[in-house]
Amino acid sequence: MRRADASAQDEVRRQNLSAVLRLLHFHGPASRSDIVASTGFNRSTVGSLTSELVKTGLVRERPGVVRGKGRPSNVVEPVSTSVHVLAFDVTQSGVGAARVGLGGYMLQVRRRLHQTTPMDVPGVVELIATLAREMDSRATPGSVCLGIVVSIPGSVRQPDGLVRRSPPLGWHEVPLADLLRVATEHRFPVAVGNDGDLGVVAEYLRGSARGQQDVLYVRGEAGVGGGVVVDGELLKGAGGYAGEVGHIVVKPGGRVCSCGARGCWEAEIGDAAIIRSVGRDPREAEIDDVLSDVAVGNRRAVAGVRKTGEWVGIGLASLVNLFNPRVVVLGGTLGALYPTMEPTLAEAFARALGPIREQALLVRSELGSDAQLIGAAEVAFADVLEDPLGTLEARRTGGDEADEDVADVPMPRSAGTQRSASR
Amino acid sequence: MRRADASAQDEVRRQNLSAVLRLLHFHGPASRSDIVASTGFNRSTVGSLTSELVKTGLVRERPGVVRGKGRPSNVVEPVSTSVHVLAFDVTQSGVGAARVGLGGYMLQVRRRLHQTTPMDVPGVVELIATLAREMDSRATPGSVCLGIVVSIPGSVRQPDGLVRRSPPLGWHEVPLADLLRVATEHRFPVAVGNDGDLGVVAEYLRGSARGQQDVLYVRGEAGVGGGVVVDGELLKGAGGYAGEVGHIVVKPGGRVCSCGARGCWEAEIGDAAIIRSVGRDPREAEIDDVLSDVAVGNRRAVAGVRKTGEWVGIGLASLVNLFNPRVVVLGGTLGALYPTMEPTLAEAFARALGPIREQALLVRSELGSDAQLIGAAEVAFADVLEDPLGTLEARRTGGDEADEDVADVPMPRSAGTQRSASR
Repeated sequence: MRRADASAQDEVRRQNLSAVLRLLHFHGPASRSDIVASTGFNRSTVGSLTSELVKTGLVRERPGVVRGKGRPSNVVEPVSTSVHVLAFDVTQSGVGAARVGLGGYMLQVRRRLHQTTPMDVPGVVELIATLAREMDSRATPGSVCLGIVVSIPGSVRQPDGLVRRSPPLGWHEVPLADLLRVATEHRFPVAVGNDGDLGVVAEYLRGSARGQQDVLYVRGEAGVGGGVVVDGELLKGAGGYAGEVGHIVVKPGGRVCSCGARGCWEAEIGDAAIIRSVGRDPREAEIDDVLSDVAVGNRRAVAGVRKTGEWVGIGLASLVNLFNPRVVVLGGTLGALYPTMEPTLAEAFARALGPIREQALLVRSELGSDAQLIGAAEVAFADVLEDPLGTLEARRTGGDEADEDVADVPMPRSAGTQRSASR
Repeated sequence: MRRADASAQDEVRRQNLSAVLRLLHFHGPASRSDIVASTGFNRSTVGSLTSELVKTGLVRERPGVVRGKGRPSNVVEPVSTSVHVLAFDVTQSGVGAARVGLGGYMLQVRRRLHQTTPMDVPGVVELIATLAREMDSRATPGSVCLGIVVSIPGSVRQPDGLVRRSPPLGWHEVPLADLLRVATEHRFPVAVGNDGDLGVVAEYLRGSARGQQDVLYVRGEAGVGGGVVVDGELLKGAGGYAGEVGHIVVKPGGRVCSCGARGCWEAEIGDAAIIRSVGRDPREAEIDDVLSDVAVGNRRAVAGVRKTGEWVGIGLASLVNLFNPRVVVLGGTLGALYPTMEPTLAEAFARALGPIREQALLVRSELGSDAQLIGAAEVAFADVLEDPLGTLEARRTGGDEADEDVADVPMPRSAGTQRSASR
């Protein structure tokens, strides 16, 4: 066999292993027959690919349940304790953390409120590093850590993970990825991404936008972030900063926004604006107070939230006129309050152009506050899904490579292609 | 030779012919040595590809000018009279038309003001059909017409060219492509595109944004249209309606826009708004009056235009925050008035987020009012550039195929790849 042929065969093998692992990672346990149907590979190919993946420890096989007559097909499933990612979501109020195993299982979740002001970069870095060490030490022995990925509400430069600016955190030019590598003694690959980008990645792969190719995601928190998937690809723009939906102008001369400008959407629909709209002071009340008030039907709270809903609808109309998405996913506070906002939001949203409006489905996030953690995890899973054997090999021998980046924040591919081929 | 090999060879041949023709079409005459340098093909391959293209009549060779010593390299050039496109640009005021030859040469240009209100669909259809017949009859005998492509300021459904809505024309659900096919007796393939999309295609391939992969284009006319190129691809969205920049909200509760909503960007920066800003009545004065007044330094006109510049800057800031483009191209009236608007526009634009603002270069369109015609032509050239022999064959035998669409409005590929490889 010539060498070129050998490497072409290796490449086909890699692609096929990737297709099977991707299917299991995104769609969960499947019988061999399911895999045959979904991938279009023949039975013996699926058998051999499965065996190879079982050897790596990434998947396992168990006898399937007998349904009707005949020999049950074995069930193949991803092993959540074979590889894991340490995912973090930094917001103005605190840090969410999760150890996420293959298959997207949240194996461990932690939430910590900031003890210091978020301004305090060393404090946040130390908190993340401590959580990372603690969560990694709780992982099943032998499970390979694919890296630390951190979601930040702000503009993050790729591939070096420099936080250019994060108004909600009050950060400017913070080399977060570098700081975290040092704080964790270069034991883990580190990547940093924008919260809106990671959110839309999560909703696209595992949430409310699954199966759709054109998606707009908006996350309401202290800051308002967003992300856009265009024809199955994450919208990045020239520098990776695209999708700053919180900073479109909706009210010229309006309130000063965290970014310094006046009248941004964030200044009208961010948590502080919502708290204000229900007649409370954002320096004293918290958004959770509003959520509780709304939950018990407090009239003032409901009226305030409805008023904010108008602004949400106005901004969304602008955004769908620009992106013509199939699905608009509302996350964070906006997702939580969507049912209350719905009447006023829909009325304002009706201003969107007809042909565009009729294609856009508004939904609330299914993933809620886990979206950023899930999106972050998928960023680090991307490599092992693309090249299962090669990535495991590299991570296990580790050492020198351990302080490499998790490269860029890429668009992880879904299992969509394989699935649709068989439908 | 096995059949698979033969067709693989044909495919390589097609790709190579495509690369050479694309180079000549977008960059003009080139010596064989230039082609060797740009494509990376060897000398004999270039010789054989060139000869094959010469046989088709799409290109010709002439002796080059002697520079210094040695035998001059032949110069290869696209033959502008080998194939042509009939391009149209419908606006509220009239119809622009051009016969565009290979190489992007505007061989013939026509402008007609609407005699009837633009509402009158049959009148516009008849005007376009008449111009098409007239321009086609003036083409060099033997030149193959690749089709009619029409730019419309509105939402156009693909691939059937149904104009869903065009507020400036007052059109709703007009099956323009079908009507034009009938009016021209199915002699030409017909496609219809959005003016902003065709504009950004033109600026990306041949105008102010050449060489950039992330581009925002805004055209100010009666309506304000736009188009976005993201990583070298036209932003389409789920239904092909993306990029409706004129209908982002910049002033809630503001003036009623042509789309029926209040406070759209178009209502603040479209031609009527500019005429109003200089203290004239849009029902009486025309935008050309404003341009003349500004040209002679009329103070009131300059002050009004500067005031509009603020609104232009505010909207552009929102748009760059969303798309993070490398270049923002201002076309139509906005391009014409950009030098006058510049101070106030820049001040308002400064509200864009720092990391994004510093990457975005604002420029005026180089192509001006030809942008839509050029973009329309490129849509129809796309096929012959992709497969020179196959497309010519299909068009020349024509007949049954002649009433096919020019398919979708695609993103024509530039010659960028070949060029950059050699730089």
